[in-house]
Amino acid sequence: MQITFLFYDGMTALDAIGPHEILCRLPGISVKRVAKSSGKITTDSGLILNADYALSDVLHADILFIPGAGNATTLRKYPEILNWINLIHSKTTWTTSVCTGSLILGAAGILSGAKATTHWAALDRLSTWGAEPRHERIVESGKIITAAGVSAGIDMALTLAAKISGEHVAKTLQLGIEYDPEPPFDTGSPEKADPELLESLRKRMVALFENE
Amino acid sequence: MQITFLFYDGMTALDAIGPHEILCRLPGISVKRVAKSSGKITTDSGLILNADYALSDVLHADILFIPGAGNATTLRKYPEILNWINLIHSKTTWTTSVCTGSLILGAAGILSGAKATTHWAALDRLSTWGAEPRHERIVESGKIITAAGVSAGIDMALTLAAKISGEHVAKTLQLGIEYDPEPPFDTGSPEKADPELLESLRKRMVALFENE
Repeated sequence: MQITFLFYDGMTALDAIGPHEILCRLPGISVKRVAKSSGKITTDSGLILNADYALSDVLHADILFIPGAGNATTLRKYPEILNWINLIHSKTTWTTSVCTGSLILGAAGILSGAKATTHWAALDRLSTWGAEPRHERIVESGKIITAAGVSAGIDMALTLAAKISGEHVAKTLQLGIEYDPEPPFDTGSPEKADPELLESLRKRMVALFENE
Repeated sequence: MQITFLFYDGMTALDAIGPHEILCRLPGISVKRVAKSSGKITTDSGLILNADYALSDVLHADILFIPGAGNATTLRKYPEILNWINLIHSKTTWTTSVCTGSLILGAAGILSGAKATTHWAALDRLSTWGAEPRHERIVESGKIITAAGVSAGIDMALTLAAKISGEHVAKTLQLGIEYDPEPPFDTGSPEKADPELLESLRKRMVALFENE
């Protein structure tokens, strides 16, 4: 089984690296990290990752993974990437995204009529692409699995691991990364956050989307 | 305030990238990613990260961060790195680690008499370095903060963010990465895991440590 992670400049590193840490350890998995061109990718935190392959090197994937980005839909400006996503998606077993990665799936034209989620601050943008927004942590719609903001990718990857390799493997991977979360605050979703803090962050994030 | 992440071949990417995604967004923070030599670092999942600086480029950090590695203590073979850790630690405000990164702090000689934690499968190895092992998710001992396995780094980073920049900033960062975990299984710690699964994984991990 082959999983391909799409990397691109401006992506959020943790969106991809959380799931990567889990899915690369599935039995029999082969992992490819691909970008418009192979080589250095600068993420939105300044961290540089390496893409081992260019788009043209990868013509098939069993699982396609698309991370999100600080300014959400940078990739909409690159039709060759959207076309590639569409091509790969046509033959995947699973097509997946984390955070605003689902807006990229939308821009590639593959969320029409599908239920999907994204980062809470971007949820209303999913309908632009004909998707049905769902404010849930993980949303399955046929072979498309979308996860909410950044850290939701870890939950999504463990869920996907169980589908692919069974619960025993997924549970072993969860124990291996000691994923027994103890967040210091109970403020990780819009429903739980202080309303003032929520509105202040929402304004900043929406402004970021509008500057794209 | 300056935070330095130590990168090295064989490190576990998520150990560093979870905390990096949070701490790089603290107000007024400057982030350096440093390795023995600057350039490409191959993590234990095959993912390649880039270190922007060599050890000799960084002579001071307010916060030092050490990730763990699949085979735990690879770095013990590099006295120049351990000496550098010791030098930087002597002037930090906080010295931090995730997973088996604490074994590297131990090998650098700075855990003597300190309470510390690490990945559950490596906990008994901490006493080799004179540390007092604690099976807790985050352990503070003076200015040294150690976190348990891999994913515990996210909880540690949010805790540290609150210490440095206050709870409002930490809560905003937690909401920003939508960290409201919903693990698909309740098996992320040795106490919660199925005993057979636990022993099987423990054997594999201990063998990994012994092969180092």
